[in-house]
Amino acid sequence: MTWPRSELLGALLAEENAEALVVLAGSSRDPDLALFVGGARLGEACVVAHGGGACLAYFTSMERDEAARAEADGVGLLHPADFDMESLRKDGKSREEILAAAVNAAFERTGIGAGRVVLAGRPPAGSALALARTLEEGGRQAVSGRALMLALRRRKTGSEIDGIAAAARATAEAFESVARMLAESSVRGRGELWLREERVTVARVKALAAQVFAGHALEQPESSIVAPAEEGATGHSTGTPDRVLRAGESVVVDLFPRARLFADCTRTFCVGEPPEALLRAHGLVLEALKASLEAVRPGIRGWTLHERVCRLFENEGFEVPDRNPGAQTGYFHLLGHGVGYELHELPSFRKTGPGTEELRSGDAVTIEPGLYDPDAGWGVRLEDLVVVTGDGMTNLTPLPYELDPRAWRTGCAGVPAGF
Amino acid sequence: MTWPRSELLGALLAEENAEALVVLAGSSRDPDLALFVGGARLGEACVVAHGGGACLAYFTSMERDEAARAEADGVGLLHPADFDMESLRKDGKSREEILAAAVNAAFERTGIGAGRVVLAGRPPAGSALALARTLEEGGRQAVSGRALMLALRRRKTGSEIDGIAAAARATAEAFESVARMLAESSVRGRGELWLREERVTVARVKALAAQVFAGHALEQPESSIVAPAEEGATGHSTGTPDRVLRAGESVVVDLFPRARLFADCTRTFCVGEPPEALLRAHGLVLEALKASLEAVRPGIRGWTLHERVCRLFENEGFEVPDRNPGAQTGYFHLLGHGVGYELHELPSFRKTGPGTEELRSGDAVTIEPGLYDPDAGWGVRLEDLVVVTGDGMTNLTPLPYELDPRAWRTGCAGVPAGF
Repeated sequence: MTWPRSELLGALLAEENAEALVVLAGSSRDPDLALFVGGARLGEACVVAHGGGACLAYFTSMERDEAARAEADGVGLLHPADFDMESLRKDGKSREEILAAAVNAAFERTGIGAGRVVLAGRPPAGSALALARTLEEGGRQAVSGRALMLALRRRKTGSEIDGIAAAARATAEAFESVARMLAESSVRGRGELWLREERVTVARVKALAAQVFAGHALEQPESSIVAPAEEGATGHSTGTPDRVLRAGESVVVDLFPRARLFADCTRTFCVGEPPEALLRAHGLVLEALKASLEAVRPGIRGWTLHERVCRLFENEGFEVPDRNPGAQTGYFHLLGHGVGYELHELPSFRKTGPGTEELRSGDAVTIEPGLYDPDAGWGVRLEDLVVVTGDGMTNLTPLPYELDPRAWRTGCAGVPAGF
Repeated sequence: MTWPRSELLGALLAEENAEALVVLAGSSRDPDLALFVGGARLGEACVVAHGGGACLAYFTSMERDEAARAEADGVGLLHPADFDMESLRKDGKSREEILAAAVNAAFERTGIGAGRVVLAGRPPAGSALALARTLEEGGRQAVSGRALMLALRRRKTGSEIDGIAAAARATAEAFESVARMLAESSVRGRGELWLREERVTVARVKALAAQVFAGHALEQPESSIVAPAEEGATGHSTGTPDRVLRAGESVVVDLFPRARLFADCTRTFCVGEPPEALLRAHGLVLEALKASLEAVRPGIRGWTLHERVCRLFENEGFEVPDRNPGAQTGYFHLLGHGVGYELHELPSFRKTGPGTEELRSGDAVTIEPGLYDPDAGWGVRLEDLVVVTGDGMTNLTPLPYELDPRAWRTGCAGVPAGF
């Protein structure tokens, strides 16, 4: 068995006129390393790969069992003993020297000679410099591998789509719990939401979601957004923890946990009577989302989908980002982004730049139109996560879109009483 | 006001015969950037600093308010407009070219000329290479800044100690909730722990801790360890999510959330009657912990404390790592480690290497003796987090040590009923 992306890697390396890819990483959480390890949890590790296969070196014999998961995925292993790591350490060699020994052993194992090498991963900057010098001493020239890695990671394998779908299922469960919490809240003085004799705060909603994710062993490396009213009306607030939610206000909830890969989903809620403008905006955003989802298929550009949404919102009198890139009201972000080992990756929905060509089968992308009014103090965004298939897409987000959480009627077993 | 570590940075740069430090980072979560941003949340950013001060460049005008927090900490700001970022982007310049423009503007602002520059942070490896080439074109030679950064970050400022203490308080609260959950559990068939008609699993304990951390807006970027019996008896299991906890078994709970900085704490529990060997090991580990805590003060080496614990355990018939580094039973790790923007940083408790000299005022370290028996299937580790002061230490971990969670009698308000 060979590593599933070998053929694509070979083609991308040929385009760069390079012989091999070298990835240096502090842990398997590095998105450039993650695609080589088959879900294993490793500390510092490096990979040497080309069109003929991939070789992973790790540095702690305790990680032998974990590293075997990479092997099951078609990646060859270099164990610490294979490059005499203990002797090097005893001889007082530096981390950089030990790393160089591992990389050189991997070059030998994979039969890669002199020439250009693309370098990826996020090691300490000094380690990247030191390795680049070692490579030069061996007749190899190191060049940036960032563009190649993004292209290599873009098309998801079947097992990666399974990983995204698992994270998406847990995300849906978290949203159902949040909807139930809001639906069961009562309204007290000044419109505050209360549940079980305590105010419903941003922190309480985030804690409920975190509890669901922890129960599925998912991480939240990028945290989450629970942004009520004025906080959800700007593009950059993640929500003040002790802010109390209120009836008649919008609350934008954007959850993006990571299993092996990320999922990403947004819903907007309003308990009680929404202001007319919020209700109208929600209807428009939902219309934009549904039209975009229907249009997602191989061969269409993300930018095209984005432009259509801009026209829809513009016709309704809103500021839009393709006409006024500096707008702070109306619609002011892109329609979507690729999702994978990073929360934001290719394909891109921008007009130009890497990954802006047509969508392809195997792309995992969000579709997330939104409308915002900072003066009136509301925001609304709805975001589904989909995988592009041969003739359309599969939506990984089986959730209602209603503003009113009481309209959700989910299969959720009820809010844990502690929240 | 100047940046608090300017003087130390000046001395460290002089030792390296270097003119300046340059940090490149993908976000303020990068531990090499975090100490410059005063708690601000930023995406991609870079810093140029020397003994005379520090200058931070950021790349998104939306982050203006966040970046101001760095300014309040004595760091000069380079706003995107200061290096004409929008024009560069419109001209189709690459990320690397824009980064180079920012770094060059920061060199001008800080008045740093040609010479050696130490490079730190964890940018994509290709960005590090590209910047090193730009620096060379400007008559500057880039060398690894890893050792310098670790030395620079070692001594915590007052505000950093406050940050660690805040994370430690939330960690103590999470442990009190976990103890209460275990104390309230009942024992059913095959010794399984049940609470409210559901089994108490590893995932359920982790979810309870996660809920506490989310309520305080803390992240768990390195996850957590809840390792029962055989899983806690090896050094490398974080706990299988659906593993049910049982009476008479050890369960090692190790929590290490991050606010601005990390905290780190371990307790070991046993519901019901502990096996004799576990009880004895717990007593010895507690003895080792207390003796070590009493000995922590400026002027003593971490290695010396570690050796003393090795002798204590060796005299009681256990394998110890300074005699048998490959041991998989008894005591097989170091006594502690520094804690800060990374979970593991300097000072080091190793025999030799960076940061292994005497402890100093301002060091934040764990003390965490442990004993393990994989054949018998138990492990016990107790870990406190302390800050070294002028004449001793301050313990940031105000928690009981008892195996029996019913002996904890904490001020915790009870287990949320949902768990």
